[in-house]
Amino acid sequence: MPPASPVSLRRARREDVAAIVKLLADDHLGSGREVVSDPPLPGYFEAFEKVDADRRNLLAVAEDASGAVVGTLQLTFIPGLSNQGAELALIEAVRVAGALRGQGLGRVMVSWAMDEARRRGCRNIELFTHNSRLDAQRFYERLGFAKSHAGMRRAL
Amino acid sequence: MPPASPVSLRRARREDVAAIVKLLADDHLGSGREVVSDPPLPGYFEAFEKVDADRRNLLAVAEDASGAVVGTLQLTFIPGLSNQGAELALIEAVRVAGALRGQGLGRVMVSWAMDEARRRGCRNIELFTHNSRLDAQRFYERLGFAKSHAGMRRAL
Repeated sequence: MPPASPVSLRRARREDVAAIVKLLADDHLGSGREVVSDPPLPGYFEAFEKVDADRRNLLAVAEDASGAVVGTLQLTFIPGLSNQGAELALIEAVRVAGALRGQGLGRVMVSWAMDEARRRGCRNIELFTHNSRLDAQRFYERLGFAKSHAGMRRAL
Repeated sequence: MPPASPVSLRRARREDVAAIVKLLADDHLGSGREVVSDPPLPGYFEAFEKVDADRRNLLAVAEDASGAVVGTLQLTFIPGLSNQGAELALIEAVRVAGALRGQGLGRVMVSWAMDEARRRGCRNIELFTHNSRLDAQRFYERLGFAKSHAGMRRAL
């Protein structure tokens, strides 16, 4: 299903930080982890500068026809010896604005991310989704991802 | 359980590439993915140079008292806005030499990786383990990791 209105993906800019933080917080897990304030906390801008300065990280936003930010995701391109030296892409922090969910925007965003990873020469793409995100897991399965791995995490 | 013989962890060097490739291949999944040759395929050296040049990636080896490489792992330090801008560490390609498994070397290696991630300011550490690696999952659970996420992957 194509999205109801056209969206375009682009690299995030510093002025998108507030919109990205709002998207990250608009979520049953993110709401307990993020702080939405105006202006955003300095830590978010510091994190943005680190991501933006790193050529192996790409923070992207989806904007609608009016230029409003309606989605975000981050890609990390990971070099390594495994798989005969193939690069791996990791996709994280995928969020679609609540009012636009179920309209095909996520599919447009993740397809864009896969194209970007191919363009960078990555041979595989992977992601973590929380066990509780069953809808997200079905969504990614429809896009060809397999639940082949356990995603394990601990605080440091 | 402490390892039978003392091991030390250090950043990998170009002359470790052959030993690392052997470790990656010595595994029920890796054996079908890697090519062990003498010298190693040029792609492995090219991948090593990319990892080594990137300050957000750390390829490490464990060496025994004789200086032999008996384990390897890679850490990636990922900046991002999520979690109020906290950095995340990803641990990948963890391998222990077949003859030394079950002696506590993996625990030493992963503990070292967690210390390194803390030292770099990361607040969480995560990893993928293939669904078939049940022993590995129990091992990471003993080290405090939870199977909180599905790890999803697809080829590009």
